[in-house]
Amino acid sequence: MNGSTIFFKNNPSIIGTSTIAGPKEGQGNIGKYIEKCISDDTLGETTYEKSERKMLTYAIEHAILNSGLKFEDVDLLVSGDLLNQIISASFSARKFDIPFLGIYNACSTMSEAFAIGAALIDGGYLKNVVAATGSHFSTAERQYRYPLELGCVRPPQAQWTVTGAGGAVISNKKGDFPVITCATFGKVTDYGVTDANNMGGAMAPAARRTLLSHFNSTGRNPDYYDLILTGDLGVLGSRILKHLMREKSVNIDKNHVDCGELIYNIDEKEYQGGSGAGCSAVVFNSYIYKKLLKKELNRVLFIATGALLSTTSSQQGESIPSVAHAVAIENRRGK
Amino acid sequence: MNGSTIFFKNNPSIIGTSTIAGPKEGQGNIGKYIEKCISDDTLGETTYEKSERKMLTYAIEHAILNSGLKFEDVDLLVSGDLLNQIISASFSARKFDIPFLGIYNACSTMSEAFAIGAALIDGGYLKNVVAATGSHFSTAERQYRYPLELGCVRPPQAQWTVTGAGGAVISNKKGDFPVITCATFGKVTDYGVTDANNMGGAMAPAARRTLLSHFNSTGRNPDYYDLILTGDLGVLGSRILKHLMREKSVNIDKNHVDCGELIYNIDEKEYQGGSGAGCSAVVFNSYIYKKLLKKELNRVLFIATGALLSTTSSQQGESIPSVAHAVAIENRRGK
Repeated sequence: MNGSTIFFKNNPSIIGTSTIAGPKEGQGNIGKYIEKCISDDTLGETTYEKSERKMLTYAIEHAILNSGLKFEDVDLLVSGDLLNQIISASFSARKFDIPFLGIYNACSTMSEAFAIGAALIDGGYLKNVVAATGSHFSTAERQYRYPLELGCVRPPQAQWTVTGAGGAVISNKKGDFPVITCATFGKVTDYGVTDANNMGGAMAPAARRTLLSHFNSTGRNPDYYDLILTGDLGVLGSRILKHLMREKSVNIDKNHVDCGELIYNIDEKEYQGGSGAGCSAVVFNSYIYKKLLKKELNRVLFIATGALLSTTSSQQGESIPSVAHAVAIENRRGK
Repeated sequence: MNGSTIFFKNNPSIIGTSTIAGPKEGQGNIGKYIEKCISDDTLGETTYEKSERKMLTYAIEHAILNSGLKFEDVDLLVSGDLLNQIISASFSARKFDIPFLGIYNACSTMSEAFAIGAALIDGGYLKNVVAATGSHFSTAERQYRYPLELGCVRPPQAQWTVTGAGGAVISNKKGDFPVITCATFGKVTDYGVTDANNMGGAMAPAARRTLLSHFNSTGRNPDYYDLILTGDLGVLGSRILKHLMREKSVNIDKNHVDCGELIYNIDEKEYQGGSGAGCSAVVFNSYIYKKLLKKELNRVLFIATGALLSTTSSQQGESIPSVAHAVAIENRRGK
């Protein structure tokens, strides 16, 4: 381990992805890149929890199909979500004859799954791993905040939980695919933010800590990357992160964008943009992955960020610990 | 990948463990092997959630100290627990300056953490990883079942959530330590059990599936092991597992024991024995680890089992999907 970054020498590649999202996301900036945009966010199910599960199942299934693999070629599913006991992931996993590792780091699930999957492929243990996660506005809202029927007014620092899911297959298959070259595991960081509506503010310090650790342990600087893509800090959180980075004399203003900023046309009630595990899962696995394939982006540092609160911890007066895991995803030239 | 088992060639070793448990556990069969038995299960905290967190923090800290490591030698903490959004693990991780991967597979967390940690060590990515989990009767009871104040009568098929935590350090350090030689990742299995009090019955089919997959992919049979140690099937679940195995013409009667059977003197109100992520974490990291060190056991197959339900999934009429991950922990002779 070089500082806190682990390096992958054997080109664990992202050979295929899939995304699905709701009507609001379909009308957003990156809507046309999403594989399947649904018009009915219940997906015909009787509960929103089942709708969320159906989206995640779709993303897993189609990531495999889009990779040209058979289901029996897949060695492992690494997945998690925001619901208590990650039922979306577990119940989705039940549908597949594939071993399952459940993970939870809130909205940093996508990059955590990439890091674990890449290590298991790179180390020669497995051949194909699916990494997937998702979220649903209506399940997150009623689990974390208020009953939907209450129609609560949202404060201006709030974000909007993305209804959507994304999945990707990491593989030892050779080809002209984007490669996960290294991963920096994040430390749990808590600056004492207690406002559960201000996720971006709570998570920005964790993102900074991982970024600094990544640059320090790799010897890279922000210019190395075409894009530094955080998970779901939103507009306010992204501004806080840039400010926090400048405090440490590292400037990411030029090449930093947040998935929560990208996903919506922010002029409506979603205020600071998207959040939820589905936010970075949808943005990365649609728009960003396609840009990598087209070589319009060649070096992306993907840092999904997670706020590790629960309603119990908030009700007991606790602040919000956060974490951010970074993975570098690059086109290796001259292969 | 050979079937569904991955093999570790570089001797990722368990170089130290720590356990802490409550008064009931301290009076049980293996009480004298537990490092710290507490007489007050609040540990002086104002909520049981904070008590659980304090135990888990203790297990992490003392696993590191007992391994003779400094905190800065530890590259990663892999941990999870039963509470919504795994707040015990996340808030414990906040206290350490160590990167954190949060995982969730209910009571199969201990073996899941061993498998992930062993792969990261064996692949040469990291040097020292802490794997830890825990549970608390009073937090689990009020989150999953009924308010404690209600004093609900328990049905005879019920188990008793263990108040306790255990941690272990997996390391690339050489020495005469037990080694994690391989891991079999489990598939999510659901035989349609809907009784949330019958965890053993729900989880036994998942344990069978992983066991059969393990024997099939390794070419080993039950006799290879001195002990096949399941996580927390309890007395009834253990009996069901033995029966299910005989159905497939594999007999584990001789060398199978369940941590939930071991931990209590079962003649009281805990009925079928212990459960909870802390159950196998405490039993393995105290009694079993000491037996491995003393060479009274040399080949242990440790299969922690997890029931992947939530109160929401149960209230929505779902059955209980389960999973079981197996790790083989062996003394390598003639090193």
